[in-house]
Amino acid sequence: MVWALALASLALVSPARQAGVMRGGAAAPSFVNAAVARAPRDGAPRVHMASCAKLTEAAALLDSVDVFIFDCDGVIWKGDSLIEGVPAVLDMLRKAGKRIFFVTNNSTKSRKGYVGKFTSLGLSVEPEEIFSSSFAAAAYMEQIKFKASGKKVYVVGEVGIQEELDLIGVPHIGGPADAGAQIELKNGGMVHHDPDVGAVIVGFDRYINYYKIQYAQLCINENPGCLFVATNLDAVTHLTDAQEWAGNGAMVGAIKGCTKREPVLVGKPSPLMIDYIVDKYKIASRNRICMVGDRLDTDILFGRDNGLRTCLTLSGVTTEAKLLSQENQIAPDYYVGSIAEFAGAGVKA
Amino acid sequence: MVWALALASLALVSPARQAGVMRGGAAAPSFVNAAVARAPRDGAPRVHMASCAKLTEAAALLDSVDVFIFDCDGVIWKGDSLIEGVPAVLDMLRKAGKRIFFVTNNSTKSRKGYVGKFTSLGLSVEPEEIFSSSFAAAAYMEQIKFKASGKKVYVVGEVGIQEELDLIGVPHIGGPADAGAQIELKNGGMVHHDPDVGAVIVGFDRYINYYKIQYAQLCINENPGCLFVATNLDAVTHLTDAQEWAGNGAMVGAIKGCTKREPVLVGKPSPLMIDYIVDKYKIASRNRICMVGDRLDTDILFGRDNGLRTCLTLSGVTTEAKLLSQENQIAPDYYVGSIAEFAGAGVKA
Repeated sequence: MVWALALASLALVSPARQAGVMRGGAAAPSFVNAAVARAPRDGAPRVHMASCAKLTEAAALLDSVDVFIFDCDGVIWKGDSLIEGVPAVLDMLRKAGKRIFFVTNNSTKSRKGYVGKFTSLGLSVEPEEIFSSSFAAAAYMEQIKFKASGKKVYVVGEVGIQEELDLIGVPHIGGPADAGAQIELKNGGMVHHDPDVGAVIVGFDRYINYYKIQYAQLCINENPGCLFVATNLDAVTHLTDAQEWAGNGAMVGAIKGCTKREPVLVGKPSPLMIDYIVDKYKIASRNRICMVGDRLDTDILFGRDNGLRTCLTLSGVTTEAKLLSQENQIAPDYYVGSIAEFAGAGVKA
Repeated sequence: MVWALALASLALVSPARQAGVMRGGAAAPSFVNAAVARAPRDGAPRVHMASCAKLTEAAALLDSVDVFIFDCDGVIWKGDSLIEGVPAVLDMLRKAGKRIFFVTNNSTKSRKGYVGKFTSLGLSVEPEEIFSSSFAAAAYMEQIKFKASGKKVYVVGEVGIQEELDLIGVPHIGGPADAGAQIELKNGGMVHHDPDVGAVIVGFDRYINYYKIQYAQLCINENPGCLFVATNLDAVTHLTDAQEWAGNGAMVGAIKGCTKREPVLVGKPSPLMIDYIVDKYKIASRNRICMVGDRLDTDILFGRDNGLRTCLTLSGVTTEAKLLSQENQIAPDYYVGSIAEFAGAGVKA
């Protein structure tokens, strides 16, 4: 049944994706290893999956791609540690004339904040190359013309969302200011919420507390038409390189759990950010864009559902065993140990 | 389609429930108002729903019921305020020889803690009459013989769960002790979790914080076989009578969102507590038990799915408009403004 589902899902994806599957098969023998044959369950027909193979000749990938979109956590860095070989790869790609974007579901920093992080790690990037989910949340508010409503946003999250809202002139409350806020439970005690809140944006918040949850609940349940926007739904994230940390899936899950409402998702795997990039930079063929990430259920799904080539890097949360397991139904076109493996190709480019 | 779904769901419930539907119809004219006729959508056949009617003659209900199971928040009290007329009703039921239980999804107190709350409100109850979801969590741990594993429990929640675990001799960590716990995000920073945690129990926790979420995430994701138990999933709860407050749905949602695991539910509408009561007190006929509560999606569903009679009280979170709306697919057998309406019947009993 796992295979049936996997094949059924392939039939539903875009033509670009289907072309991608063919590229990974026997038609491009110099490009990838032989198609990966996996043992079927008893009684099931034998199926050879050609949709996922270790990248062996990076030069061929580079020749066929004009735009690389990199996830950050687990691809460029882990926590505050740069992944080995990354600066050389980025230099090589720029020299070869490739356009580079960094797309991250982390909402704790704004674009400007991310430039600071890249710089502190010795990498030089432009703010316009960075698409954080904090930026995506603001881009969504612009798209729906939220400012014209005259309402404000309640933020569960960190400074990144606030900085991006400031740049588009949308007023906001909450965020870090409510980090120490407490509730009072004497008779008649209540949290007084602002009836002019027209949207709650929920991003990763290491200072999540009951006051913020209650404030968000009141806005969503009691303010007519109040929106519920999630920057991302990642279960785990990289705060340090020592372990996995509970991600924004926790904060969004808390608000879902007390409102029974589903949020509008703006980060990966929602198409919002890729549509924005393709539109703004007039990228003609999605087939020449490669999404590079470390997560199957956000990065690779995000690329696949948007008709991009996809490359999984094992430098983050996904192991090779998990990628190749029968349970996994999300196959990238290629995978690498880390993006440092792109570097060899640079010499030939 | 709403009606089709409602009728389809009726066909799936127990014989006791189907008898209940018939009781509410023309066969028992002295018992309830006439069947409620609601306007169908355009083009849909006219359907007369007989499954929900305002209680008009309480004496008949009392004659046919031996056991009353009362929810607490919104039925007996709201926050710290007793609902008017409740003491007289409970006295009357006891004098009429009825068995009374109090079943609450609130996990913040143990049975012993609840006796204190009842006493402070001037009500006299025995600990054995109280079934809180904190007790249910401990009863579940006993049922699965968790103690024999030699493992401990990590508690997201308040003192009620801890007190109930103490009574069955199951070691636990977390809970109120982690209220002020913080994380350190220096390089290599991590939360050290105990590999001997074999279950995470999540109950309502007004001191929820990121440390607790991360600790629970690590136990569930990294300790092999670690259980995830939720006392309840209520979206909102009554902390004070001034407003609705985010409930344990928020805490459980947070842990679901960072683990992608579904919990074992022990509170309403899970059958665990009603099975325990029926078994322990050798109650022969579920048809002579009436579940009285203020929530459609926990109390009434809980009663209905377990073959009990059901009575909704409007003294809590559910309005008459919501109950009778076409969107509502959960119909109690009867409903009252508050359980004070039972009292008139006592004179006749």
